[in-house]
Amino acid sequence: MKLSTRHIISINDLTKKDVLTVLQTAESFKEISERRIKKVPTLRGKTVVNCFFEDSTRTRVSFEIAEKRLSADTVNISKSGSAMNKGENLLDTMKNVEAMKPDIVVIRHSMSGAPQLISEAIDSHVINAGDGLHEHPTQALLDLMTIQEVKGKMHGLTVGIVGDILHSRVARSNILLLNKMGMNVVLSGPKTLIPVGIENLGATICYDLDDLIPKLDVLMLVRIQRERADDNLFPSLREYSRHFGINTKRLGAAKKDLTIMHPGPVNRGVELTPDVADGERSVILEQVTNGVAVRMALLYLLIGDEHEEVGQ
Amino acid sequence: MKLSTRHIISINDLTKKDVLTVLQTAESFKEISERRIKKVPTLRGKTVVNCFFEDSTRTRVSFEIAEKRLSADTVNISKSGSAMNKGENLLDTMKNVEAMKPDIVVIRHSMSGAPQLISEAIDSHVINAGDGLHEHPTQALLDLMTIQEVKGKMHGLTVGIVGDILHSRVARSNILLLNKMGMNVVLSGPKTLIPVGIENLGATICYDLDDLIPKLDVLMLVRIQRERADDNLFPSLREYSRHFGINTKRLGAAKKDLTIMHPGPVNRGVELTPDVADGERSVILEQVTNGVAVRMALLYLLIGDEHEEVGQ
Amino acid sequence: MKLSTRHIISINDLTKKDVLTVLQTAESFKEISERRIKKVPTLRGKTVVNCFFEDSTRTRVSFEIAEKRLSADTVNISKSGSAMNKGENLLDTMKNVEAMKPDIVVIRHSMSGAPQLISEAIDSHVINAGDGLHEHPTQALLDLMTIQEVKGKMHGLTVGIVGDILHSRVARSNILLLNKMGMNVVLSGPKTLIPVGIENLGATICYDLDDLIPKLDVLMLVRIQRERADDNLFPSLREYSRHFGINTKRLGAAKKDLTIMHPGPVNRGVELTPDVADGERSVILEQVTNGVAVRMALLYLLIGDEHEEVGQ
Repeated sequence: MKLSTRHIISINDLTKKDVLTVLQTAESFKEISERRIKKVPTLRGKTVVNCFFEDSTRTRVSFEIAEKRLSADTVNISKSGSAMNKGENLLDTMKNVEAMKPDIVVIRHSMSGAPQLISEAIDSHVINAGDGLHEHPTQALLDLMTIQEVKGKMHGLTVGIVGDILHSRVARSNILLLNKMGMNVVLSGPKTLIPVGIENLGATICYDLDDLIPKLDVLMLVRIQRERADDNLFPSLREYSRHFGINTKRLGAAKKDLTIMHPGPVNRGVELTPDVADGERSVILEQVTNGVAVRMALLYLLIGDEHEEVGQ
Repeated sequence: MKLSTRHIISINDLTKKDVLTVLQTAESFKEISERRIKKVPTLRGKTVVNCFFEDSTRTRVSFEIAEKRLSADTVNISKSGSAMNKGENLLDTMKNVEAMKPDIVVIRHSMSGAPQLISEAIDSHVINAGDGLHEHPTQALLDLMTIQEVKGKMHGLTVGIVGDILHSRVARSNILLLNKMGMNVVLSGPKTLIPVGIENLGATICYDLDDLIPKLDVLMLVRIQRERADDNLFPSLREYSRHFGINTKRLGAAKKDLTIMHPGPVNRGVELTPDVADGERSVILEQVTNGVAVRMALLYLLIGDEHEEVGQ
Repeated sequence: MKLSTRHIISINDLTKKDVLTVLQTAESFKEISERRIKKVPTLRGKTVVNCFFEDSTRTRVSFEIAEKRLSADTVNISKSGSAMNKGENLLDTMKNVEAMKPDIVVIRHSMSGAPQLISEAIDSHVINAGDGLHEHPTQALLDLMTIQEVKGKMHGLTVGIVGDILHSRVARSNILLLNKMGMNVVLSGPKTLIPVGIENLGATICYDLDDLIPKLDVLMLVRIQRERADDNLFPSLREYSRHFGINTKRLGAAKKDLTIMHPGPVNRGVELTPDVADGERSVILEQVTNGVAVRMALLYLLIGDEHEEVGQ
């Protein structure tokens, strides 16, 4: 086995050595997407079922492209058409999928813990493509890959994660992963959006973003959902943006080589201004490119045959 | 030609010899789904269009996996995006699909008779993936394959079909098919859910399930739709379950080797209790596995080239 | 480069020589869809993303079949699942898609000009699959291919386009294209549905359809949307049909070899009667068949490798 785990549910499933293996494999797969013929036969005859019980075009498309560039057969299941609408429970749905002999199921679900539950019930490999408020491990891995590419190192870097930490599975997976790889993670955002006890995952908190910015090597913004303002978790998007929105002026005090990241979709003018989103420090689109490479790596490491060479 | 029919609309399209050919071919295809490389080039360069004008993730996924494991090119059409929303009639939609030169169209439609109508209007082969209250022949074939695998024979077996027979195309196709293959079919369920004259298809009726159970070799449950209680066809799900729900106690009088089947999706606690659904007698998931094999067989038998060998 | 343009946004992107190249290539690809093995390896390892932000099953299926017959990897994005629902703007969505390194993006959008905007923002090739009231160039090319096949020539033919010209991107693209290839285009329909100044695109107007019919070599009907009657643009479908609906009687004065075309979906009994739609003069389904061939040609001409031979 190429990884110490059969499933990618949580960053906690991966050892530090696993993470390094994923990054190294992803780098070699990244090159395939730049070729004239963007396809290798690595997963020919393998079946991947993408179960997106919660909408996410960008993650689904990233997985689907990764799968097809590895020559896997892919089938998509979305929320709307699923038998769960007919009263079937999730485990029965997934045991049915399992009975059709997929090699991997990729699962996005609005319920935290759904992929874990499923991985205990079926024999196929499971990849968590985002579950409720829990984790989004493939996003954290592509973020890490991007940091390592830009910075040339991981250990000792200080990474700020700013925004709605409370509702962000991306933040949770990143705290665990960046911490595991020796980085210092500092969280910032409105107090109502930073969950009590989050420090236990391996992060410190700094409510004053302007104090924090000069110390950062990487500034990772997480999405603010407009609906949260209705929940009275912060007064308004304008108010949010005044205190935590990133603009060129606020970045005046930043290190010269500060890297700006965002998992998307971006609310321009809320988490950051358009000139920052599109500026030299931003690696937002590089994150998307690396997403395909990281997902190719995970698929290969979980179900690729032992004797198959990468990038043949 | 490998079958005596160009289309699979109804069980009546198949001779007994056809059915045996399907079962034999399905057995050899089943093995492909267990391989390391789950793919054969049998239908390379063939186009299959899956037209699911009525939602059904599990049947659509089963067909799509079958098609991909045979290397066919697959395209999906669902109700929501279809031109019929713009006022186009079904035959025009299907003649348009036909003009793109598919080899097979797979059709699910809420209207009984739609696949028949279409098969008369277009040149491609048509497979009925369930039409209204009429038939669901591929489901019956996978049920038959499962029975034959478990029992080692077909002729002379007694099969009970229990539940909402009135609204069940699965029941209708199974009555025709099991009868054709020499089995005795007995129906049970609330009187309001057993249609008048159904005996003419080749079945007997026994309203007292507890009388029936000891005689059965196979107990096939069909789905109760919650909405039917609103139509006053039976008092309540609780009441249904008390008279016709299968539980361990009720099975006390059953033959030791009674086999329990259900086409899914299962309403746990209604048609059967969870311990029965997941128990030793249940072959519910084996049915799903055989679904892929039966559909591979039908696709191959309808459009595979004469000189192609199965399972190459 | 095989065409003088990197993108197919408008008919204006194509020179007359380009158009002839497309037609010639499409003819050679058309034959592939008639083969026993309907597939060539021309675009193996190329990724095509079909972004249908406006529903259109028939155009999406035509592109998808064209892509698969060329062995491209295809991924579909529909309106409903897209991140734009989460407040992301169109260009950010498309830059994200671009970051996953597709070779071509096919775009249908309800906003006129969206494909143009996107083609200026991303590096991939862009094909416009219909944008708002602007253009639908692949439809016009397949219409032209059909005319040339049936008539054996293009120059000097008189083509009438009849119906809701105001809301028809098909009409706009056809006016530009047929005019470019030396045909005379005459428009007819209710005054409220013929936009002021449309003559500038290269067409004349004749409000009296019965005057026009005897002069036509080709009669191209464009779709009437029922909803337009509610906008008071014409009194009723019945009234429309009386003045502009095509029936056998009205065709009494037509040339013997008049060709009837319609881009679909057809409103039977509105734009034309069923006997005309299905009659000898109608090439409606041939248009659909040619759609696959034209789209194969465009995909190949934009991203096929220089040394690849057509139809290998």
